[in-house]
Amino acid sequence: MKQSYALYDTWLQRGYTLSESMKTVLSQAVLLSEDQQLEFCMKEYIRGVRRMFGAEVQQVPKEQAGVLLGTLEQAAKCLPQDGKTPGAEGFRIYENGGHIAVVGADRSGLLYGIYRLLMLLAQGKLPENADICETPAVQVRALNHWDNMSGQIERGYAGESIFFKDEDFCFEEQRVVDYARMLASVGINTLTINNVNVHQTETFLISERFLPKLARIADLFRPFGIRLLVSINFASPMRIGGLATSDPLDEGVQHWWERQTELIYRWIPDLCGFLVKADSEHEPGPYQYGRNHADGANMLARALKPYGGIVMWRCFVYDCAQDWRNQKIDRPRAAYDNFVPLDGQFADNVILQVKNGPYDFQVREPVTPLFGAMKQTHLALEVQVTQEYTGQQRDLCSLLPLWQDVLQFDTKRPGTVADMFGSQITAMAGVANIGKSECWTGHPLAQVNLYGFGRLSWNPALTPEEITDEYVKLAFGSDPEVTGKIADILQRSYPAYEDYTSPLGLCWMVNPGYHYGPNVEGYEYTRWGTYLRATCREVGIDRTAAGTGYTTQYAPENDTLFSNTDTCPEKLLLFFHRLPYSYKLHDGRTILQYIYDTRFHGEEEAEAMAAEWDTLKDKIAPSLYEAVAERFGMQLENAREWRDVVNTYFYRHTGIADEKGRKIYK
Amino acid sequence: MKQSYALYDTWLQRGYTLSESMKTVLSQAVLLSEDQQLEFCMKEYIRGVRRMFGAEVQQVPKEQAGVLLGTLEQAAKCLPQDGKTPGAEGFRIYENGGHIAVVGADRSGLLYGIYRLLMLLAQGKLPENADICETPAVQVRALNHWDNMSGQIERGYAGESIFFKDEDFCFEEQRVVDYARMLASVGINTLTINNVNVHQTETFLISERFLPKLARIADLFRPFGIRLLVSINFASPMRIGGLATSDPLDEGVQHWWERQTELIYRWIPDLCGFLVKADSEHEPGPYQYGRNHADGANMLARALKPYGGIVMWRCFVYDCAQDWRNQKIDRPRAAYDNFVPLDGQFADNVILQVKNGPYDFQVREPVTPLFGAMKQTHLALEVQVTQEYTGQQRDLCSLLPLWQDVLQFDTKRPGTVADMFGSQITAMAGVANIGKSECWTGHPLAQVNLYGFGRLSWNPALTPEEITDEYVKLAFGSDPEVTGKIADILQRSYPAYEDYTSPLGLCWMVNPGYHYGPNVEGYEYTRWGTYLRATCREVGIDRTAAGTGYTTQYAPENDTLFSNTDTCPEKLLLFFHRLPYSYKLHDGRTILQYIYDTRFHGEEEAEAMAAEWDTLKDKIAPSLYEAVAERFGMQLENAREWRDVVNTYFYRHTGIADEKGRKIYK
Repeated sequence: MKQSYALYDTWLQRGYTLSESMKTVLSQAVLLSEDQQLEFCMKEYIRGVRRMFGAEVQQVPKEQAGVLLGTLEQAAKCLPQDGKTPGAEGFRIYENGGHIAVVGADRSGLLYGIYRLLMLLAQGKLPENADICETPAVQVRALNHWDNMSGQIERGYAGESIFFKDEDFCFEEQRVVDYARMLASVGINTLTINNVNVHQTETFLISERFLPKLARIADLFRPFGIRLLVSINFASPMRIGGLATSDPLDEGVQHWWERQTELIYRWIPDLCGFLVKADSEHEPGPYQYGRNHADGANMLARALKPYGGIVMWRCFVYDCAQDWRNQKIDRPRAAYDNFVPLDGQFADNVILQVKNGPYDFQVREPVTPLFGAMKQTHLALEVQVTQEYTGQQRDLCSLLPLWQDVLQFDTKRPGTVADMFGSQITAMAGVANIGKSECWTGHPLAQVNLYGFGRLSWNPALTPEEITDEYVKLAFGSDPEVTGKIADILQRSYPAYEDYTSPLGLCWMVNPGYHYGPNVEGYEYTRWGTYLRATCREVGIDRTAAGTGYTTQYAPENDTLFSNTDTCPEKLLLFFHRLPYSYKLHDGRTILQYIYDTRFHGEEEAEAMAAEWDTLKDKIAPSLYEAVAERFGMQLENAREWRDVVNTYFYRHTGIADEKGRKIYK
Repeated sequence: MKQSYALYDTWLQRGYTLSESMKTVLSQAVLLSEDQQLEFCMKEYIRGVRRMFGAEVQQVPKEQAGVLLGTLEQAAKCLPQDGKTPGAEGFRIYENGGHIAVVGADRSGLLYGIYRLLMLLAQGKLPENADICETPAVQVRALNHWDNMSGQIERGYAGESIFFKDEDFCFEEQRVVDYARMLASVGINTLTINNVNVHQTETFLISERFLPKLARIADLFRPFGIRLLVSINFASPMRIGGLATSDPLDEGVQHWWERQTELIYRWIPDLCGFLVKADSEHEPGPYQYGRNHADGANMLARALKPYGGIVMWRCFVYDCAQDWRNQKIDRPRAAYDNFVPLDGQFADNVILQVKNGPYDFQVREPVTPLFGAMKQTHLALEVQVTQEYTGQQRDLCSLLPLWQDVLQFDTKRPGTVADMFGSQITAMAGVANIGKSECWTGHPLAQVNLYGFGRLSWNPALTPEEITDEYVKLAFGSDPEVTGKIADILQRSYPAYEDYTSPLGLCWMVNPGYHYGPNVEGYEYTRWGTYLRATCREVGIDRTAAGTGYTTQYAPENDTLFSNTDTCPEKLLLFFHRLPYSYKLHDGRTILQYIYDTRFHGEEEAEAMAAEWDTLKDKIAPSLYEAVAERFGMQLENAREWRDVVNTYFYRHTGIADEKGRKIYK
C-alpha cells in the first residue's frame, strides 16, 4: 500500500474489482441541478471514479445516465415515494435495474452520499437493489486538533502539525485539501485546528494578525462541508484586548467579545463557533471572577448568536492542585459537581463537551454520569482518537471496543448514550490523531481510529466488527486472508492493551507527564487526584455512597449496579471498590491472580499479534509491512515492561506468588 | 546584612570591633619586596583594611611598620628561626609585640596569608603572640561550575550563570573579580566555568571562536591565584576538528589534541588543564572505540604535559541503561570495577576525580571504595556543594557534617580519607552552588557550604563546628546570641534533612529528574540502577559478598564491618543490607519504627529551626530575615511532604501502625 497523503484516494484504489457492467453504469452520470453549489459534488464524483478504475465519467442527459445525483428537491422523483426521507446532511442511495440514484437532503448530504457510494463499491458492498437512507446521528461531528502554533502537537504521536510551524501558519494546501476530503468521506463536518490549551500566540488566532490565514484554511475546508470551530482563550479580553478583566459579567468584556466576534465572522462567515477549555488545568475561566460556567459560556454564546455560531464548552474541570492526603475530594466527581447544578442555565447555542469518562481518557473508565443527568442542556460526547493513554501509536490499540462500551452504556435515564444522540447529545468530538506522518497517524493501523470515530459520530449503532470490516477492506483490499487477519489483529488489540496495562479499572499507572509505559505509583502522591492507594492488603477506591459517593451521581439503578461488588462489571471493579487482593472474582480467581494472569496474557497477545502480522509479510507492501513490524517491536518491549513492573509491584506488596509459577521478578 | 556581590568584603565589614591599638598596627605596613608580582598582594591588604575600618594604610619603612608582608625569601628574618616553614601556597602569620608578619611561601601564599589575617581579625580571633603556619592540604582546590552557555546551570539553584548567556559569554567584570576574591579568600585555586556535560556550543570553548573570551576570564582570575580548568568534550576531534574519529589511539586524533592544546596555551599560558566526563551518562568516551579510560586520559595528558597541564578525569562511569530486572548489576560497584584494574596505568599528570560516594551525592552514602585502592594513581575527592539531592537551596542543609563523615572515614588502607590528602589524594573538587543570586547562593545560609568547601580543601581536619563558627562570625558579626543561634540552626540542618528524607542509607527516594521532593518509587523501575526493592516484608539491597559483592571492594576490615549488621553503621544499614521491617536496631526500635520516628523528628526539627530563626527577626536586616524565613516556609512544606509520603508508603507496605499513634495518612 502506498502510504499516501490522500488516504481517501487509496481507499478507493484498493482491491475490489468492479464488474464491467457496473463500470459502465458508473461512467455515465448526471447532476440533476444547475445549482453551482452542487457542481463540486459532481466533480468529487468524477474524481472518485477516476481514482477507482481510471474511467472518465461522462456527463450525459438524465435519460442516459447510470448514476443520478441531486438533492431531494430535484431528485425526489428518482426515489420510491415511500416517505423514507433523509434528514439534514443525510442521503439516500437507491439502486434499481442498473441505475443508481444518490440523493442528498442538502448539498452536504449529496457529498456524503457520493463518498459513501464509492466507498461501498470499493469494499464490494453495494447490494443489488440497494436502498440506503441515512441521516447523521448528531449535528456536530467534530475533530479537535491539539496543535500548537509552534508546530508541536500536544499528545500528538504522528509528527508535527500540518497547519502550523514556528508560531505561525505553515501548510501545504494540497495536503489540507486531501485531509478535508478524507474527513468528509468519514462524515466529519467540524474541525478545530488549534489546541484547547490556547497559548500566547494562539490567543491571537481570532485577531487580525492571523484571521486572514485562518480564513484561508476555512476556504479550503468549506467545499467539503467542514466548518471551523476555533479554540479561544477565555482571557482574550485581557491578553489581546487590553482590558483589565475578562469577567464575563463585565459589560466591557461582553462588548469586546461582540466586536471581536463580528470581526471574526467578517473573515469567516460560516464559522461554527468557539471551543473553550476554561478553569481547567490552570487555564483562565469564569471562576476567577466568582462567576460560574453558565455565566462564561452564555456570554460567548450571546456574541455568537447573531451569526448562528455555537460555543462548545469543555467540562474537564477539576481540582488539579489536590492534596493526596485529602481523601474527601474525588476527582471523578468533579464534572458532575461543577456542571449538573447549572442544568437549564445554558443558552441554546451552548454545547457542553464531556469526556467519555470521569477521569481523562483512561484505558478503562466508567461512562461519565453527566449523560442523562443534564436534560436541559446540549451535550457533546468527547473521545480521544489520539492514543495518549492507549499506546501512543506505538502500541496498536483499536479504540472501537472502548467507544462501543461508552455508546452502549445504559444510563437508565433512560436509554444508552447512543440513544441520546440527536436529542440530549447533539455533538460528538474526537481529539485528532493525525500529523505530518506519511500515513497520517504514525502507526499505519491507527487509521482505524480516525475512520471509526467518523463512522460512529455518523452512526453510533455501528459495531466494532462492522467498522473494522469496512476499514480493512478499504485499506487492504479484497484478499480475505489479509483482511481477515488484520481485522483479527485490530479486534484483539484493545483487549490486549487493557490486559497488560490496566487491570480491573485501575487507572493512572503510567509515567507522569509522558503517559507511556508503566509507573504504578507515578501519580500516587501527586496533585492530580489520581490515586490507587495500594497497600499490602488491598487496592482501589471506594466510590460508593459509603466512600466518596461518586456512584450516587448515576441513576439509582446504576448506583446500585456499581455499588454492589457482585453486579459491578468486573472490568471496573477496582475503579468503584477498595478490595483485598484475596477477593474472589466470579470465576473464582483472586484479584491478585487476575492481575498476574492478565499481565501474562496481554503480553502473549502482543506476541501473537506481531506473529500474525509476520505471516502477511509477502502480501503487504514492504514499507508498510516494515513500518507496522517495527511498531510491534516497540509494543512487545512495552508490553513486557508493563507485565513485569505491574506484576513485581503487586508481588512485592503481597508476597504472594503466581499460582502458575510464571516468572515474576522480585 | 547587605546581600552584596562582594561577599568577602561583607565578611570583613561584620561586627567585631578592633582595638584602637590594633588599628594603628594594621594601618602601617610594608611590603618587603620590590617584586611587582607581589604588589597586588599589598593592594589587597590595603583594600581589605579599608573595608574593615575605613583606614587608609600607609606604606612605611620596615622599621616603622606594624605589618610586614613578604615571601619567605625576603621576610624570613621576621620569623623565628625554628624551622617551621610553610609549603607551596602556604603562609605563616606571626605576631610579636605589636608587630605582625605575614609571610607567604610564594605569591599565592602571601595572598592567602593576608586574607586569613584579615578574616581572623574580623572574627576577633587573632590570638596574642599568634604563630600560625599553614600549608594547603592538596595542590588542586577546584570548584566546578556546571554552567551551560545558554546561561542555565545544571543543578543550579541560585539563578543563572554569572559567565554565560544565550550561547555566548556574558559577564560583569566587577562581579567576576568579586567572585575571584571570595574564592581566593577561602583558598580555592582552580576553577572550571563550564559544565562537565559539554554540549554543542561549549565544545567550541577550546577553539578560536571562544578562546579570546575564555582568556579574558582567565585574566580576571589570575591575580587571585586562580587558574582555569576547562571541561572538554572527548569527541572534540570529530565535533570541532572535522575528524572521522575521536579514538584516543588514533594518531590523527592525538595530533589534533596536541595542536589544539598548543593553541589553547597560546591564549591561556597558565591553564590548569582539562576536566573530562567521558563514557558517562551518554557522554562520548574511549569505550566507544574499545579503548579504556587510561588510553583516553593519557592521550590528553600527553598533549598537556609540555605546558604543565593536568587532566582531571571523572570516575562517574556506570551503566545508565540498566534493566531493573537484572539484579546482578549493582551500580555502586561501577567506579571501582571500571577504574581499579587500571591503577598504575595513568600518566603522572592525570588525576581521577572520584565522587565521595559510590552513587551520586545522595544524602547518605558510604565513602567510595576507590580511596586507598588505587595507590599508584592521583585521585581527587569530588563533593557537591550545590544542593542537588540535599534541598536545592530551598531547604537549609549545611553539608559540613556530610563532608566530615567522608574525610574522617577510615579506609584501613591505611588511614582516613583526610590522611590521604597530599599523598594519594592530590585534589579536592566541589560542584559550585553559586549563580546570579544577590547573595550568590539562593538561600543566604547556603554560603556556609561554599565557605566550608574552601576551608576543607585547605585543611580537611577542620571540624564542622570550627568552620560554622568561622562562617557565622564573618557573616553575622559578633552578637553571640545571633551567631550562636545561627550556628545551632546550621549544625542541626543536615541531621534534620537526613531525618525527613533518607532513613538508614536508603537513597533515591526523590522525584526523578528534578531531584527535589519525595517519590519513593520514582527511580524504582528505571534504567538508572537505583533500586530499593521494598516489599511488604523487607527493604534494601544486600551488598555483601553474599549479595552484589560491593562490600568486597573495601579493605577486608571494612568489608567485615559493613557486612555484619551488628557492626555496620546504622545510618548505612539499608544501603548494605536487605532486612525485614521488624529488624531491631541497637536501641531496640524496629526499622519501621525508626523510619516513622525519624520522619516525625525531621519535620519537627524543620519547625524548630524556622522558629529559632524567627527569634532573630529584630536582630537581622529585614531583607535577609525575610529571604531566609521564606525559604524556611518552603522547607516546612517539603519536610511535611517527605514525612507523610514516606510514612504512608511504608505504612501501606506493612500495615503496621506507628507505635506512638501519630498521624500517618492511609
